Amino acid sequence: MLTFVVERTDSRARLGRLELPHGTVSTPCFMPVGTQGSVKTLTPAEVGETGAEIIVCNTYHLYLRPGHKRVQAAGGLSKFIGWNRPILTDSGGFQVYSLAALTRVTDQGAEFQSHVDGSRHLFTPELVVGIQEALGSDIAMCLDECPPYPVSRPVAEAAAARTSLWAEGCTRARQPETNLFGIVQGATYADLRESSAKSLVALDLPGYAIGGLCLGEASDVTYDMVGRVTPLLPADRPRYLMGAGYPEDIIAAVRLGVDMFDCVLPTRNGRTGTAFTSAGRVVIRNSRYTDDLGALDPMCDCYTCRSFTRAYLRHLFVVGEALGPKLLTLHNVRFYQRLMQCIRAAIEQGAFEIWSSEFLDRYRSSAEPAGENRDR
Amino acid sequence: MLTFVVERTDSRARLGRLELPHGTVSTPCFMPVGTQGSVKTLTPAEVGETGAEIIVCNTYHLYLRPGHKRVQAAGGLSKFIGWNRPILTDSGGFQVYSLAALTRVTDQGAEFQSHVDGSRHLFTPELVVGIQEALGSDIAMCLDECPPYPVSRPVAEAAAARTSLWAEGCTRARQPETNLFGIVQGATYADLRESSAKSLVALDLPGYAIGGLCLGEASDVTYDMVGRVTPLLPADRPRYLMGAGYPEDIIAAVRLGVDMFDCVLPTRNGRTGTAFTSAGRVVIRNSRYTDDLGALDPMCDCYTCRSFTRAYLRHLFVVGEALGPKLLTLHNVRFYQRLMQCIRAAIEQGAFEIWSSEFLDRYRSSAEPAGENRDR
Repeated sequence: MLTFVVERTDSRARLGRLELPHGTVSTPCFMPVGTQGSVKTLTPAEVGETGAEIIVCNTYHLYLRPGHKRVQAAGGLSKFIGWNRPILTDSGGFQVYSLAALTRVTDQGAEFQSHVDGSRHLFTPELVVGIQEALGSDIAMCLDECPPYPVSRPVAEAAAARTSLWAEGCTRARQPETNLFGIVQGATYADLRESSAKSLVALDLPGYAIGGLCLGEASDVTYDMVGRVTPLLPADRPRYLMGAGYPEDIIAAVRLGVDMFDCVLPTRNGRTGTAFTSAGRVVIRNSRYTDDLGALDPMCDCYTCRSFTRAYLRHLFVVGEALGPKLLTLHNVRFYQRLMQCIRAAIEQGAFEIWSSEFLDRYRSSAEPAGENRDR
Repeated sequence: MLTFVVERTDSRARLGRLELPHGTVSTPCFMPVGTQGSVKTLTPAEVGETGAEIIVCNTYHLYLRPGHKRVQAAGGLSKFIGWNRPILTDSGGFQVYSLAALTRVTDQGAEFQSHVDGSRHLFTPELVVGIQEALGSDIAMCLDECPPYPVSRPVAEAAAARTSLWAEGCTRARQPETNLFGIVQGATYADLRESSAKSLVALDLPGYAIGGLCLGEASDVTYDMVGRVTPLLPADRPRYLMGAGYPEDIIAAVRLGVDMFDCVLPTRNGRTGTAFTSAGRVVIRNSRYTDDLGALDPMCDCYTCRSFTRAYLRHLFVVGEALGPKLLTLHNVRFYQRLMQCIRAAIEQGAFEIWSSEFLDRYRSSAEPAGENRDR
């Protein structure tokens, strides 16, 4: 049910084609986040027009509301939300730790109270796979234990071990047609990362994710961990760095052989008024834009940049019009898709290093703090 | 700068063509409300796709933020907001009474404190015309005095007299190319309505509005007032009933010879989860829609109805996704445009009575209370 072909490499960077039940995805890819079955503020048609070929939805949220059986009865998640392309569902392990009131974690599973109504639930590896199968996900993720950063070594060790144990449970429980990805844990401990990767690779899964990073640790630590894990993963399987993130992090991870990314940054920052542009980040409420009749990003081809001035976009945010968050989200999602298109073109041409140094020079990343990227 | 042609009448109902600087409008028309320069939640492209040919913006709001001089420097309101079609601007008289802290009204003008920052301002007839000219409105409205419902006779009499006085000031102040509409006041007093209409008609303005209705009075009172005023207005000028409203009110007013309408109902109700459909109103949060896999309105051709089920729309509202309000707004605005298209086709065919009784039978309006329709 999944075919992955690496079509070209440029040093460790890979250009690939990922075929899934609902369509084909060019990699490296960025997956906009549609946690509750909606990429916030955008219609599925708009998401598709940005060039996105796959989105991420969330098992924890959709299990609670509207319920996976209901989505299944409606013909599956893609049909229910009107997105006729691939969907990856995160397992909910992260949300159980970050959002719900976690009551108990055992080898059997994670017991938690819903953040919506306080009701009690138990996520077992088997249930989480079953939910994702009911949703009809193109890619399902194993239940993982993702403790909040910073993580002590004993906690990281236990979490990585339990993640591997749960991955075995997920693997046994899955239907043959389910595309189940394992999640490498181990926090910022190189040896734990390596043993986690090895134990998951032994399960011979169709793809592998690296979880538990981009949570607040320094970038060089993130890159160090990623750089240690990717060589241990099978070259013919897609690799997904969960929750990254900033353009500079994506570029660094592509250089280390990562194929797939997701993050709430473009959508969340769009809603709060920060745009990613080819000249760096723009905080649109800044008074310097009050009379700025230029486009948000003169190098962008999105509807927002083709149609409106910075002065109007600022006005929308200042007066609290819902159109403001929507237009900046649309731009940001398009910015990320263009970024990935440029990355793919650069790899295709064997010019990834040249392109990325030129891009980063222009982008001149400002000093916004990292962390809190992965969806809550 | 304004040409109005009545192309066909069916009893008192009129089919017309209104030519304005930014384009042509078929009448009877419904103008979606974009108070602060945005039809809430929709892009201008989406508003245009619903069939809307003209929108209403607000002088009071745009004067305060971003400021009319700023809009003028940006090339006028149509260009600033990316809506390359006609715009009518309400004068702000209504908002001064309903939204700002009104400090003093004299024959000179209305003194008020901004609802944004408490700053003090004086709206004179001359200033209000000047603001609308700076905005580049296709149709500017006279400053009017619109006291809150219910209105005692002495208050109504004074307000109507002052509205006429201010209309003279507006008329003297306007540039030759400004399309200035007068506003008939007089609350629910037939003789005041008639004298107000006559004094405004004496100014030979290119169009006339009926203000101060649809504010909470019974429908038969509204219709009685409208029916008394329209015969007093010149047959070759467009007539605009401000703040109406419900489909049944629009149909009743078209029957009495009204050509133009605006109301926040389709946009406001869309945001709060009520859809107007060919079978009446749908409150989408209702649990009866939890598993409803049908379209919001099976007779509608909008993106929302073509793409999503009631179950998904309900889910979006239940979990608080911004896409929900947007999709219901899009539907409602399209519903109103289709309503007007049907009204125009019925007049064209001389079948307005037959069509409207069929429509209303199907629509079977539910008992939602009237009032609070006009934008705050």
